[in-house]
Amino acid sequence: MSIEEELIHKINYKTKPLKSLGKIEEIALKIGMVQGTLSPKLIEPTILVYAADHGITDEGVSAYPKEVTFQMVMNFLSGGAAINVFCKQNDINIKVIDAGVSFDFPASPMLINSKIAKGTQNFLHSPAMSIEQLEQCFEYAEAHINQIAEKGTNIVGFGEMGIGNTSSASMIMSYLCNLRIEQCVGRGTGLNDEGVATKISILKKAKDKHGEINNPKEVLRIFGGFEIAQICGAMLAAYKKNMLIMVDGFIATSAFLVASKIEPKILNNAIFCHQSDEQGHKLMLEHLDAKPILSLSLRLGEGTGAALAYPIIKSAVSFINEMASFESAGVSNKE
Amino acid sequence: MSIEEELIHKINYKTKPLKSLGKIEEIALKIGMVQGTLSPKLIEPTILVYAADHGITDEGVSAYPKEVTFQMVMNFLSGGAAINVFCKQNDINIKVIDAGVSFDFPASPMLINSKIAKGTQNFLHSPAMSIEQLEQCFEYAEAHINQIAEKGTNIVGFGEMGIGNTSSASMIMSYLCNLRIEQCVGRGTGLNDEGVATKISILKKAKDKHGEINNPKEVLRIFGGFEIAQICGAMLAAYKKNMLIMVDGFIATSAFLVASKIEPKILNNAIFCHQSDEQGHKLMLEHLDAKPILSLSLRLGEGTGAALAYPIIKSAVSFINEMASFESAGVSNKE
Repeated sequence: MSIEEELIHKINYKTKPLKSLGKIEEIALKIGMVQGTLSPKLIEPTILVYAADHGITDEGVSAYPKEVTFQMVMNFLSGGAAINVFCKQNDINIKVIDAGVSFDFPASPMLINSKIAKGTQNFLHSPAMSIEQLEQCFEYAEAHINQIAEKGTNIVGFGEMGIGNTSSASMIMSYLCNLRIEQCVGRGTGLNDEGVATKISILKKAKDKHGEINNPKEVLRIFGGFEIAQICGAMLAAYKKNMLIMVDGFIATSAFLVASKIEPKILNNAIFCHQSDEQGHKLMLEHLDAKPILSLSLRLGEGTGAALAYPIIKSAVSFINEMASFESAGVSNKE
Repeated sequence: MSIEEELIHKINYKTKPLKSLGKIEEIALKIGMVQGTLSPKLIEPTILVYAADHGITDEGVSAYPKEVTFQMVMNFLSGGAAINVFCKQNDINIKVIDAGVSFDFPASPMLINSKIAKGTQNFLHSPAMSIEQLEQCFEYAEAHINQIAEKGTNIVGFGEMGIGNTSSASMIMSYLCNLRIEQCVGRGTGLNDEGVATKISILKKAKDKHGEINNPKEVLRIFGGFEIAQICGAMLAAYKKNMLIMVDGFIATSAFLVASKIEPKILNNAIFCHQSDEQGHKLMLEHLDAKPILSLSLRLGEGTGAALAYPIIKSAVSFINEMASFESAGVSNKE
């Protein structure tokens, strides 16, 4: 029997009607396949929260002032944000990465300084970053993954903070999913109808300016934030280390989208955690043929969907390791 | 300000865009309202798993032999079932109640003996239980709730095991939601098309035999299993103690349905945990205007949906108690 057949056999002979644990069984199978074992383990789960500022905020695409990026990073570092609360509850390690925030942070054991610059260029007028900056994002990100791999981490999630970053994610989505801007734009963190119309008009102008782009890395470079580029690089590095990758939210999924165009096999390692209320997220997940674990109407980012889904992923592992079989429990199977 | 206004204010001034934690915020508000406090707590969460046998299994309505009821109870007692695994992972207490299984169990610290009889009567020919037996179910159930209340429990979930009990739940649903039998019958734990057709035909005969019944308790008495009746009684008792009630699965929801017809205000205390794949469950939840936390394609019962949803309920409490406000974190609010 192949490992897949052995896993399916183990799952099917647990004391329950066939397939009656639904999604839990699917996750258990996926984790067993990635780890190549009938007894998978989750070790040192970690969420990396990447933050950066965006030149495009000059165009008024967000409901919040750009200062909120650094203020929220300070909030992460003092443990007061939603992602801190949920990681603490679920025993998930958290690291915050300054990928390019326009602020000089005090040192903190939770903070990794990987600042590329104090915010990207405004992609309405020029590419968001240079080729060298994009390469630097990927190098730094690989180092973050190596650092947590040394501690044994085999499951990693990604969060983000960056006022303006739904604009980057919408551009990436429009190019890589081949969808009109209108299908890729939502309210972000709280735009009204007028705000959405302005955002769409600006992003259309940007699309007109940059024209056709076929290389996914080039799309990332021209529109991406530093946090999106580092998340993309970290996802690819995590795949190389055979980690499980918790994908969550509109921004993190846009980074995954780029990663999946560079390395399609990364989908094998992905666990989609949450379908957000951001309009484009549903379409992006459909494009990836992904069916997330949760749908809690979250639209916060930070990796909160991954942190909330983690106990369910853990339940899938508990299920396959700890539950009795019909044989071991002396229970009659279906007639 | 009323407590509701104070709770909404506290929730809205957390460091996040308005309503961006979706369902988490709704649960936090509900729990705060039930407990009448801005700082709610979950104490000694407990899942009560009720088991019983059903006379209707004589008609061949289930894919599994009736012996599976007692075998699965033995599996619960030795810790090998799905509900054991998930409760252990999430620090939830578990008690198994023999409400009427056709088997003499050895004593176990996990087991409560509340056996009414060794299975109900076959409701195709006579009421499943007598008036006295139904009253006994309610009395026993109230004692179970008093017992856990003494330990401080303020949140309780309900699971069940009973080969044949989807037939009882379908009958209850058909009467109390005023829906045709076909809309209330599913595959149970794994019937094929022929099995479903047989089940529908038998339940229609039972409906013809018993005719119109308007009193919800009478519906419960005539069709209900002893486990469904005890769950219904326990839910009503839990409401009287102002506990939060985790409602999960087709069978447990049918018990809740009866309880809600007896005491409509019980809806205030209910947290719907999971929408199962059992066909009728969606319609039953719509009847109750309930939007469950999870939708993981579970169709196992045992209270597994409640055990899996519990960490998310806990996250709602962590959120309202531990997350910083805009003011405390020095973060700018929306412009």
